[in-house]
Amino acid sequence: MFEFRKPIQIKEAVERVMKYRIEGESETISLRDCEGRYLAEDVIASHPVPPFNKAPYDGYAIRSEDTRNASLQNPVKFKVIDHIGAGQLSNRTVGQLEAVRIMTGAQMPEGADCVAMFEVTQDASEGDSLFFTIKRTLKKGENVGLKGSETSEGAVLVKKGSRINPGIKALLATFGYAYIKVARPPRVGLFATGTELLDVDEPLVPGKIRNSNAHMITAQIKRAGGIPIYLGKLVDDFDLCFQALQKAVDDVDFLITTGGVSVGDYDLMPEIYDKLGAKVLFNKIAMRPGSVTTVAALGKKLLFGLSGNPSACYVGFELFSRPIIQAAQYTDRPFTPKIEATLGTDFPKANPFTRFVRSYIDFDDGQVFVYPAGLDKSAVVTSLADTNALMILPGGTRGYEKGDKVEVLLLETLQGSSFIWE
Amino acid sequence: MFEFRKPIQIKEAVERVMKYRIEGESETISLRDCEGRYLAEDVIASHPVPPFNKAPYDGYAIRSEDTRNASLQNPVKFKVIDHIGAGQLSNRTVGQLEAVRIMTGAQMPEGADCVAMFEVTQDASEGDSLFFTIKRTLKKGENVGLKGSETSEGAVLVKKGSRINPGIKALLATFGYAYIKVARPPRVGLFATGTELLDVDEPLVPGKIRNSNAHMITAQIKRAGGIPIYLGKLVDDFDLCFQALQKAVDDVDFLITTGGVSVGDYDLMPEIYDKLGAKVLFNKIAMRPGSVTTVAALGKKLLFGLSGNPSACYVGFELFSRPIIQAAQYTDRPFTPKIEATLGTDFPKANPFTRFVRSYIDFDDGQVFVYPAGLDKSAVVTSLADTNALMILPGGTRGYEKGDKVEVLLLETLQGSSFIWE
Repeated sequence: MFEFRKPIQIKEAVERVMKYRIEGESETISLRDCEGRYLAEDVIASHPVPPFNKAPYDGYAIRSEDTRNASLQNPVKFKVIDHIGAGQLSNRTVGQLEAVRIMTGAQMPEGADCVAMFEVTQDASEGDSLFFTIKRTLKKGENVGLKGSETSEGAVLVKKGSRINPGIKALLATFGYAYIKVARPPRVGLFATGTELLDVDEPLVPGKIRNSNAHMITAQIKRAGGIPIYLGKLVDDFDLCFQALQKAVDDVDFLITTGGVSVGDYDLMPEIYDKLGAKVLFNKIAMRPGSVTTVAALGKKLLFGLSGNPSACYVGFELFSRPIIQAAQYTDRPFTPKIEATLGTDFPKANPFTRFVRSYIDFDDGQVFVYPAGLDKSAVVTSLADTNALMILPGGTRGYEKGDKVEVLLLETLQGSSFIWE
Repeated sequence: MFEFRKPIQIKEAVERVMKYRIEGESETISLRDCEGRYLAEDVIASHPVPPFNKAPYDGYAIRSEDTRNASLQNPVKFKVIDHIGAGQLSNRTVGQLEAVRIMTGAQMPEGADCVAMFEVTQDASEGDSLFFTIKRTLKKGENVGLKGSETSEGAVLVKKGSRINPGIKALLATFGYAYIKVARPPRVGLFATGTELLDVDEPLVPGKIRNSNAHMITAQIKRAGGIPIYLGKLVDDFDLCFQALQKAVDDVDFLITTGGVSVGDYDLMPEIYDKLGAKVLFNKIAMRPGSVTTVAALGKKLLFGLSGNPSACYVGFELFSRPIIQAAQYTDRPFTPKIEATLGTDFPKANPFTRFVRSYIDFDDGQVFVYPAGLDKSAVVTSLADTNALMILPGGTRGYEKGDKVEVLLLETLQGSSFIWE
């Protein structure tokens, strides 16, 4: 009954999981719905930027050579022959001492090679005829946004694996990507195990509690960019659980179970993995909570046996499931960013193991403070509500004090990170 | 033509906008789809946690009084009369020197008032009859999770206005919230103005560019939790624009236009606001880019006139539109978190105005570094792709150096902040 499990270090556990990294499939979607998805192809400039010589400011498009002799003593007079805004084309060619009044973003008219901003011109109109003068020289190309000066055609602008944010969406629109190839979100199957579990719409009965882990994990799967496939809850019955898992594994990219991984009399997962022929990558990690998190590989597919304890379940998902779900979407930054923060309160409890304390980050005064989210008792589901970070407290013989610098995993940033474990 | 506009400070501009804060409507949705939504009601504990006295560890449920005389010299022997896992109930009442073998999470059987963990017991079975001994005393309530010890019934667990994260979703499930009242996302109407604009699926033609701002802003609206209602693009024609805006404003909670707010010959928004009878809150802000961002109020409804320049448009939305869209969802933390970061590179260009430099945050080595995302030339759309933060550089006569501490707005965190402007 008291099965001996050899704990491994967190870094080693993450590395074992990441060896099963899969390159997921791609699908083509509309630009409209692309937010938060991961690019399955590079974004290429399909034309130069600007696509034509343009006026970057309001002013007059003229020939620079006509200003050659302009000076305070010798103002040069130009005649305005046309007037265009952005999106309009002049059908006039600018000749000697002629000018086209031009607005920001408009294409430079033929003949002109610079723009005199209004500030350097003096109105000299005569009745209905528009004239102005200039008292300084302008150089060829002055105040002209040259075709291709910002980006040349064919340039790789954004790499495959990038998460589409508003700026990338703007680029996609600019270059005519009405449809885009993105990573197909991995399908993550999920069973909640435990005879004690009720559905959310069932009334409480003695000895039972409502299933909260499945709902929590579906939210975590979505946060990782995956599609949760909730497969229901299972009572603690070996044959029933075995058959359900065996049937489900073919239809999903990853399979998560909650509960049944500890060493209690009804913890069936170890035997089920055995009967499935799955290879257990680890079943004990030197950390709290989540030390019994078990990951097994069935062929190339990973089975995540998360704890039934809500906080251990949460932490196990974030450390081991989230990175590989994100990695299946082509990103090379699938990890949760780790930063240093200042502990905002004393945390006197010592613990020999590395702990992941459910915490919240407070950015408010320009610095980064971290606070434990309520008591870190293993079963307190309430503190998860405040959690937007996990504080990493290395094991030792003493607690921690307000003001100590600690490492923190930022769970609620959309930005990924490369490998974070030492 | 050279209209005089009096610039106001950023803080003042944000305050003027936030005076129009609206309490949005609510709607009821399924727990399944609640991620990222804002609660329109407090989450209340509908039952105590734990809902019954439970075993927090595996062990034997016994009567503490039976261990009164237990010691190393005087082991006390107990008979195992039942065996339950989580979700199972024992129909036995634990009597003198009797025990129920109990797994973590199971309800304590009648009669028992403490749990002896396996570690403190010695097997003493006789044939098929299960016995064990104990050599120490246990106190009443020892290793029992008492009903209500974690949360009492009726406690407010999460406040209205909180953004639903995985932990909150778990709580909602625990307490039977199969359906939840959440903020109805504000409907944000959007026009892109400019004769130069093509749709994403149109081929380039001379003088024109594809509309990217509308796509960018729809992504920014979604990031703020709003529903983008893209109303199309408008050529620079006064009557057409006026009628389109007048018609649209009734159907949306906020109305955004891009372009037409500067002082060029085809910048029509100022006159349109005038004819609509809207009150201009400001039309010039002491900042770069986005200084011409214009916000007007038509009755209680805000019209955002964002620049047509992509980076100015982006910044104008983030500073002025995003907080009030978020605030309409009940949150009291509608602002983008501001932190201090270390400038990772020299930024020598000085500027008399406060700048919002499109930047990216790098968390990788545990510290927070910020880098400008490409050149900050006003029209360079490419740099927005890398942007996950805006670096705030106060105006002055000198540039900034690598290693300088600078303030940064974190655009890609899901966490809000209270007022950030000084």
